[in-house]
Amino acid sequence: MMRVIGIDPGLRNLGWGVIDVDGVRMRHIGNGICHSTATADLATRLLELHRQLTDVLARFAPHTAAVEQTFVNKDAVATLKLGSARGIALLVPAQAGLVVGEYAPNAVKKAVVGVGKAAKEQVDHMVRMQLPGVQIAGPDAADALAIAICHAFHSQTAQRAAKVVG
Amino acid sequence: MMRVIGIDPGLRNLGWGVIDVDGVRMRHIGNGICHSTATADLATRLLELHRQLTDVLARFAPHTAAVEQTFVNKDAVATLKLGSARGIALLVPAQAGLVVGEYAPNAVKKAVVGVGKAAKEQVDHMVRMQLPGVQIAGPDAADALAIAICHAFHSQTAQRAAKVVG
Repeated sequence: MMRVIGIDPGLRNLGWGVIDVDGVRMRHIGNGICHSTATADLATRLLELHRQLTDVLARFAPHTAAVEQTFVNKDAVATLKLGSARGIALLVPAQAGLVVGEYAPNAVKKAVVGVGKAAKEQVDHMVRMQLPGVQIAGPDAADALAIAICHAFHSQTAQRAAKVVG
Repeated sequence: MMRVIGIDPGLRNLGWGVIDVDGVRMRHIGNGICHSTATADLATRLLELHRQLTDVLARFAPHTAAVEQTFVNKDAVATLKLGSARGIALLVPAQAGLVVGEYAPNAVKKAVVGVGKAAKEQVDHMVRMQLPGVQIAGPDAADALAIAICHAFHSQTAQRAAKVVG
């Protein structure tokens, strides 16, 4: 059994989702959203996210982590801010001693839906199909669960390949 | 007396500089560069920077911190990576309980050289003038010292204004 945390980085809302994976079986363990205070300065907001995400890691003790490789093309300021939140999303599992996978949005969609250009609603639908009965805290948590599923899929593929080779 | 740390965020080289400020007098305390392994994955590199910068904060125990507001316009991927390093630069002093000032590059130049469009060499020269005998670890450390000087300047101006009002 492998416990996976997926993280969807964002400064205001940082989604997380934890699943257990055993062969082809997946089970939902938890999901939620870390929030930062919009009116606080950037350093304080990052500290808030760091504390909340550290608590999540301590509570669920995942074996491996994955973070989405988001791109923002609007403007450099927004991208830089998102990048700082992404830094926290990568740092916290690394501090817990985990290897952190990174996946482009298209790779996540392809793993969960089967095509790289799926709509957000399709991803959400497939996450609910894969994890029956799951209650999802919000869109960012749904994305985080999709990232976790993607990571589980790629890890299994890598393990199977290793078995074939070995 | 106020001890200030200035931080110039970067993923490969993260510069830092510490000065003591007492009225208009400034004294160099230390400067250096945190490095991350270029071949490592991003999460590991951020962890390396976090550890090294945390050590610097513990060693010098500054009272206040300032980080440059860098912008990269080349491409979103580079900006996102720089942003993640900037997240660490902001997080570490916040974890130490410090308020973290942010200054645009032009504000740093204006405070150190007197004009917002100064060349890098001028900034370097003025940093050496303000901190006689300083040995600087590299360009990123020089920038970090300039940020510290800028923060000292703005903090003093704010204090003087408060005295006039009070």
